[in-house]
Amino acid sequence: MSFDLIVRNGTIATASDVYPADIAVKEGVIVQIGRDLGEAKDEIDASGKYVLPGGIDSHVHIAQPSGDGIVMADDFESGTRSALFGGNTTILPFCLQEKGQSLREALKRYHALAEGNCYTDVSFHLIISDPTPSVLGQELPALVEDGYTSFKVFMTYEALRLSDAEILDTMDVARRTGALVMVHCENEDAIRYLIGRHEADGQLAPKSHASTRPIAVEREATHRAVSLAEVADVPLVIVHVSNGEAIEEIERARRRGHKVIGETCPQYLMLTADDLDGMDWEGAKFVCSPPPRDKESQQACWDGLERGVFDLFSSDHCPFRYDDPEGKLNPKGANHFRHIPNGIPGVETRLPILFSEGVLKGRIDLPRFVALTSTNQAKTYGLYPQKGTIAIGSDADLTVWDPNLTRTVAHAEMHDGADYSPYEGLELTGWPITTILGGKVMIHDGELLGSKGDGIYRSRGRSNLATR
Amino acid sequence: MSFDLIVRNGTIATASDVYPADIAVKEGVIVQIGRDLGEAKDEIDASGKYVLPGGIDSHVHIAQPSGDGIVMADDFESGTRSALFGGNTTILPFCLQEKGQSLREALKRYHALAEGNCYTDVSFHLIISDPTPSVLGQELPALVEDGYTSFKVFMTYEALRLSDAEILDTMDVARRTGALVMVHCENEDAIRYLIGRHEADGQLAPKSHASTRPIAVEREATHRAVSLAEVADVPLVIVHVSNGEAIEEIERARRRGHKVIGETCPQYLMLTADDLDGMDWEGAKFVCSPPPRDKESQQACWDGLERGVFDLFSSDHCPFRYDDPEGKLNPKGANHFRHIPNGIPGVETRLPILFSEGVLKGRIDLPRFVALTSTNQAKTYGLYPQKGTIAIGSDADLTVWDPNLTRTVAHAEMHDGADYSPYEGLELTGWPITTILGGKVMIHDGELLGSKGDGIYRSRGRSNLATR
Amino acid sequence: MSFDLIVRNGTIATASDVYPADIAVKEGVIVQIGRDLGEAKDEIDASGKYVLPGGIDSHVHIAQPSGDGIVMADDFESGTRSALFGGNTTILPFCLQEKGQSLREALKRYHALAEGNCYTDVSFHLIISDPTPSVLGQELPALVEDGYTSFKVFMTYEALRLSDAEILDTMDVARRTGALVMVHCENEDAIRYLIGRHEADGQLAPKSHASTRPIAVEREATHRAVSLAEVADVPLVIVHVSNGEAIEEIERARRRGHKVIGETCPQYLMLTADDLDGMDWEGAKFVCSPPPRDKESQQACWDGLERGVFDLFSSDHCPFRYDDPEGKLNPKGANHFRHIPNGIPGVETRLPILFSEGVLKGRIDLPRFVALTSTNQAKTYGLYPQKGTIAIGSDADLTVWDPNLTRTVAHAEMHDGADYSPYEGLELTGWPITTILGGKVMIHDGELLGSKGDGIYRSRGRSNLATR
Amino acid sequence: MSFDLIVRNGTIATASDVYPADIAVKEGVIVQIGRDLGEAKDEIDASGKYVLPGGIDSHVHIAQPSGDGIVMADDFESGTRSALFGGNTTILPFCLQEKGQSLREALKRYHALAEGNCYTDVSFHLIISDPTPSVLGQELPALVEDGYTSFKVFMTYEALRLSDAEILDTMDVARRTGALVMVHCENEDAIRYLIGRHEADGQLAPKSHASTRPIAVEREATHRAVSLAEVADVPLVIVHVSNGEAIEEIERARRRGHKVIGETCPQYLMLTADDLDGMDWEGAKFVCSPPPRDKESQQACWDGLERGVFDLFSSDHCPFRYDDPEGKLNPKGANHFRHIPNGIPGVETRLPILFSEGVLKGRIDLPRFVALTSTNQAKTYGLYPQKGTIAIGSDADLTVWDPNLTRTVAHAEMHDGADYSPYEGLELTGWPITTILGGKVMIHDGELLGSKGDGIYRSRGRSNLATR
Repeated sequence: MSFDLIVRNGTIATASDVYPADIAVKEGVIVQIGRDLGEAKDEIDASGKYVLPGGIDSHVHIAQPSGDGIVMADDFESGTRSALFGGNTTILPFCLQEKGQSLREALKRYHALAEGNCYTDVSFHLIISDPTPSVLGQELPALVEDGYTSFKVFMTYEALRLSDAEILDTMDVARRTGALVMVHCENEDAIRYLIGRHEADGQLAPKSHASTRPIAVEREATHRAVSLAEVADVPLVIVHVSNGEAIEEIERARRRGHKVIGETCPQYLMLTADDLDGMDWEGAKFVCSPPPRDKESQQACWDGLERGVFDLFSSDHCPFRYDDPEGKLNPKGANHFRHIPNGIPGVETRLPILFSEGVLKGRIDLPRFVALTSTNQAKTYGLYPQKGTIAIGSDADLTVWDPNLTRTVAHAEMHDGADYSPYEGLELTGWPITTILGGKVMIHDGELLGSKGDGIYRSRGRSNLATR
Repeated sequence: MSFDLIVRNGTIATASDVYPADIAVKEGVIVQIGRDLGEAKDEIDASGKYVLPGGIDSHVHIAQPSGDGIVMADDFESGTRSALFGGNTTILPFCLQEKGQSLREALKRYHALAEGNCYTDVSFHLIISDPTPSVLGQELPALVEDGYTSFKVFMTYEALRLSDAEILDTMDVARRTGALVMVHCENEDAIRYLIGRHEADGQLAPKSHASTRPIAVEREATHRAVSLAEVADVPLVIVHVSNGEAIEEIERARRRGHKVIGETCPQYLMLTADDLDGMDWEGAKFVCSPPPRDKESQQACWDGLERGVFDLFSSDHCPFRYDDPEGKLNPKGANHFRHIPNGIPGVETRLPILFSEGVLKGRIDLPRFVALTSTNQAKTYGLYPQKGTIAIGSDADLTVWDPNLTRTVAHAEMHDGADYSPYEGLELTGWPITTILGGKVMIHDGELLGSKGDGIYRSRGRSNLATR
Repeated sequence: MSFDLIVRNGTIATASDVYPADIAVKEGVIVQIGRDLGEAKDEIDASGKYVLPGGIDSHVHIAQPSGDGIVMADDFESGTRSALFGGNTTILPFCLQEKGQSLREALKRYHALAEGNCYTDVSFHLIISDPTPSVLGQELPALVEDGYTSFKVFMTYEALRLSDAEILDTMDVARRTGALVMVHCENEDAIRYLIGRHEADGQLAPKSHASTRPIAVEREATHRAVSLAEVADVPLVIVHVSNGEAIEEIERARRRGHKVIGETCPQYLMLTADDLDGMDWEGAKFVCSPPPRDKESQQACWDGLERGVFDLFSSDHCPFRYDDPEGKLNPKGANHFRHIPNGIPGVETRLPILFSEGVLKGRIDLPRFVALTSTNQAKTYGLYPQKGTIAIGSDADLTVWDPNLTRTVAHAEMHDGADYSPYEGLELTGWPITTILGGKVMIHDGELLGSKGDGIYRSRGRSNLATR
Repeated sequence: MSFDLIVRNGTIATASDVYPADIAVKEGVIVQIGRDLGEAKDEIDASGKYVLPGGIDSHVHIAQPSGDGIVMADDFESGTRSALFGGNTTILPFCLQEKGQSLREALKRYHALAEGNCYTDVSFHLIISDPTPSVLGQELPALVEDGYTSFKVFMTYEALRLSDAEILDTMDVARRTGALVMVHCENEDAIRYLIGRHEADGQLAPKSHASTRPIAVEREATHRAVSLAEVADVPLVIVHVSNGEAIEEIERARRRGHKVIGETCPQYLMLTADDLDGMDWEGAKFVCSPPPRDKESQQACWDGLERGVFDLFSSDHCPFRYDDPEGKLNPKGANHFRHIPNGIPGVETRLPILFSEGVLKGRIDLPRFVALTSTNQAKTYGLYPQKGTIAIGSDADLTVWDPNLTRTVAHAEMHDGADYSPYEGLELTGWPITTILGGKVMIHDGELLGSKGDGIYRSRGRSNLATR
């Protein structure tokens, strides 16, 4: 047999195993793993490196409209390029339904923006912001059949939040179709109440973003979300968990026998609310929701990763420019934290942060790193076994990882559309050096070889994890 | 000194002490406790009996309008007469604000109905159903100053439920005025969702009342209520707790350092959801919210009483006639559980149930019985030390209790306006035989001596428990 | 009626009530409470003061032998005098059975030492250190009948610790006789293991006393003690709880339905392990077991007091001189923390600490202060209703309390036999000024009027709390 | 390349992946996985079957002496043959140190018994029953270096139990050498106490085995074991967990940040204490420790498997004959449950039970089945990556699994040395049909092709899980 590509001499890591072997690829798919595999048109030498399934980032925001006419810093070209340099081969951005819009209309826009512009494969979660009878009764079930098998609901943000009744009705579609619901858990009413009290006290600096969204607000919404899911009898994903009290709600739900998938993100391991209290308006760079908390919460999230609370480690990449006419430094409602766009970039630093701080510091082992960043993401969102592992028949989406390479995070060397990184100056060991998408070498030794358009849209099946 | 009344030879029980002594009353107030107290115009011999502070039932519904034009079975005359025969000297019914109505208007109606018609003292909690800016900004703070120091909000019932934002704004009034908020915790949206599913399945019998309001629905709302109270930084009362999961939420809140007062009721100790599954429409007699649960939940409520989760044991007396044109047997929406009016009678059986099943079965001691049924009720709702204890200077509201008298509950011998008791046939030992209100003997040896109008309205101070 | 004594114009506080009234005493007993009580041979004016039931300190060590030939700093004279000046009218020291000794022998010694030397009433708990068949089979049951109704077992200290089998056999006596078991919960084996590691590392300073007895060691023993009590089916008292993890074990046991009484002490509210790390050997002054912990543990103990985890607040008074040939500064095994005698003085400061730091800072209310320091102590240990409350027929043991008096703790003004106070320099508001024992004024306005021998031995009944 | 063996057309399942592929073996090791792998000397067709890593049963008792001179029903020949027919390729029996014996002596005996007699590979855990200074100081550390990297301690059984001090000293060896400690958690003293009470009541039937070892006894020991491990700072394995309270202790330890590995067994999923209450002495067939509990405990163990509490699912195979002169029916102390030998057979039914009841009923997915029965066993006990997965370079230990084969458990068809199966009559779907050990086909289509002696002793490395 002659192959298209062989990756030689590396150490393969999957969600359960680590072992030295070569990988042979044909027609974009892994066809043999072993020793002495013969010849191929192309070869990659991975001596001294790990060969990982390409990273899958299931929580990414690209080209979403963001109120006040503010524009996100990444389109699909820059966003997927940044993802690729971060060791990812697939990302799952959101398709946001705006009020009054049909889901098909919304999808049309995102597909048009993505088509021909991607460096990684992509697929879309739907954000349901207007769950009308026709959306829930006809459109959404049909879209699930078409491969849009996950949708997200918000319990916060004036423009997006759904009532409990709407969440239940949306969950009911998941119950009937086998789709998976993701929930952003923060109690909007409680936040508004606290904003009112902060405004009354004249506390309008970026740090008030954190104190108007305290842990109780996230814990409450988390408990409510899992309770609604219990009532509707569906599994659910709690995204971007930031602290130990929300973790406790997830664990309690599981002890009651309910299926809950938890996700945390780099910002909850590496940042704290103190970062929002920088000089002048510097704190705005760290404004995201839920906000980073404190050292104790960071530890709780690490512990949660270690003991299996979290199945997913995603970036919640949501990039805005800082120093733009429309950026975080100059929000429309100048001098009021409420108008700072919510979100930070991170798709390129996700894997290095977890490897350097997690694997190398002995908190998690390498299989768990792979599970959190790729395999579970694929299983949870219906991309498995096409994506998320190194196995015969799977897409040859591979990341060659140098576990000894040390670099200091510098936004100047990043590839996203924002103008800063919240992790600027952080020294990390362990970076991707070669990334292969469907058997095509997209990056080699840090050089971009692929073209935009090499990444394509992927329809998805039902979630494995949700039904296991 | 010459006294108006001496109660001789009894054994006094308070929330901490049990000891034999005589009690001397002058001008409606207790003025001496001891031995050899001298003479009085009137005497009661309490040999072989306990002398308790008169029962205070802080959770009673009287003469409230109840949707569908249904009329409650008790007016103030029958309701307070029944309370008196149950060993109570004070009750706290609700004054229900209807949508569009001012609180003053609502109060006017209830005061008019109560005036001159009461056999016990009364005071009113306010139910806030329309928290407009003027209600919250002007009316309610003024009413707190006037002695209406507690108000209740609902998380269920279409006509009454408040949004989280409205609850927070109402709690904020409590924060600023020192008033106390009571919450009925059930998630209306979740109930509506389950009703929809039950309707789709044609499950319309009374027992569906219970299965559309499962424990998860109460637990969720309980957690949300305490979380909102944490955000607003106010203590709160969780009324009519029915099960162990809601209890767990109360205990967790306390462990987080938050002040939560818990209440349970006889129906959660003595009834189960199976009672709603009676022949034909018999189950309607047991329809109340939250619904009775199961044996395990009963045990959890008993355990909660034993280990101090509950400070209050109230009746949630909410009487409807069963066999009336407008009663539970013939709801407007015939053959649909949704239209059965919610509530059961119980003001007269509250004390005997807790004494017979609690004290005599060794689950609680006598001081705790007094605390749960009188002292804590007075302290929680600002009636202490005028009410709720036997101490110098307190009102001479006394109940002479025969701990050996055994009677079988028979509605024919009750004094309320309903036409059934949910406890019909239950044998209980320990009943009140003499009840004294402000030094006046209202009932003696089971005979009614007092007149309607002997009981009067009582303005209240701030809660002791809330601020301890 | 003519009385022996009237305490006038004070405000009485009991475990449930606070109200202004006068108290009349005859033949050592309270006979009337009220207004205008007539005349008496003696009068105390308590205007502006509280009148409390005399403090009962149920955890006091006096004249116990303490290994290495070290002598405790207090005999019955100095110990009860100090207790009296601290507002106490009864204390419960321990009668320590030494190995090979019968309980009767041991009792003989303590009775002989106490007889004629006491300023307060006393009663004895038995410490069982040698539970032979004859001790458990004959002696102990007989002694329970004679009024020695509580006994303590140790899980630590080489000379005192019992095995689990011995603890179970001792508990079984309690099961059969209705007596009450108290447990000192620390795992001796774990402590020895840690001592070994500390010795290997040369860490021999006083602070190592704390690090060789970490929280896990107390938590483990607490869980084990309640489990053994579950197996033997007896209630139990967990004495001197120092931290949140041990508290959690108590609360979990209660949620399983088991009866556990918790006690904490001033040292766990006011000291930390840092106090053991003083200059030179100063830390030895704070050596007690369990050791003081950290700020978080202090808060946990306060929270436990507030939410009802603890029924008892005792001193664990266990006084040693610091600067003596045999004192803490010069232990036999000089320069090794193991030889510092374990224990600190505190019987005189217990009430002022809890009043000043607890009541005046709003953490607990006055009735709860009375319950924790007197009423519950009497009920738990079978002295109620003779002791522990202000009620008709109870002993006239009264403490007149000045809530406005501010003093700074100075050992020079204390009355115990030690040569330091661990609270030296602490400013406290609220002190006893008059103490009355059985109707006799022992201290008035700070002046000692009573004589040694006024306090006598009191036989006790079964525990109320254990059987409620 | 020419291979020794190819397994074709099967569906490979590992702890993370399931995919169709062929496996090529050379010199006992897996060398290629893929499609179109070429030729081999031997071939197995696995069409329609799963190919799993051979089962590893890490908790097996073989040829241990068992007090009273009773002989276990399995020697290494019958035990490993039964294991092989159950789909296992490696088992880890225990080498029991008897009092006074050196570990080397003990090992000599077990090696001699195993040598040349095994159908599967074997390795030994050490049971430490006599932790003398020389055992802990010299022998054990040397044996860890030699590949005996795990040892077990008992908290029960008169002849085996260690004191807490001894357990700590043994754990300390693990701390210094990187070995792993396993603990049997039941409180011997509490059991003896309850035995005494049962004897006093004349309750001597087999069912008393269960009631003298109640859940509290296991929960207590579990909490103690993890606490001792916290003090000694070592990870540990809690073997054969039987109920939800013990599970809670494991989860609490993890939440405190401690590394605890949990194991459960088929008997805790499939049996209850009622099985011990059979006619006459039939209940003796189900006597094992801890005893099977109740339906609620079964559910708790299933839930624990589902949510990741358990890393290991083992048999605790400990076979005794029922109807032998020395068997369970005729224990030495006839008519007394204490003398029934403790243990039941199960090495052959472990995998079918978990597959049929777990995988096919949707409780766990196939990768988790593989993890629980093989991969985690290898990782936990230092056999990985040689054993426990299907990966390049790993031993070709493979089990071909027919997921559709339904059989009823009948001991007549089993291959162990006992004379009954506790699961007799249980219908299970999913059985091994071919088992390959180091590339040699040992069983094919149910026929035994291998020879005793094909299985050999395996030295082990340090635990992966303990150090991840």
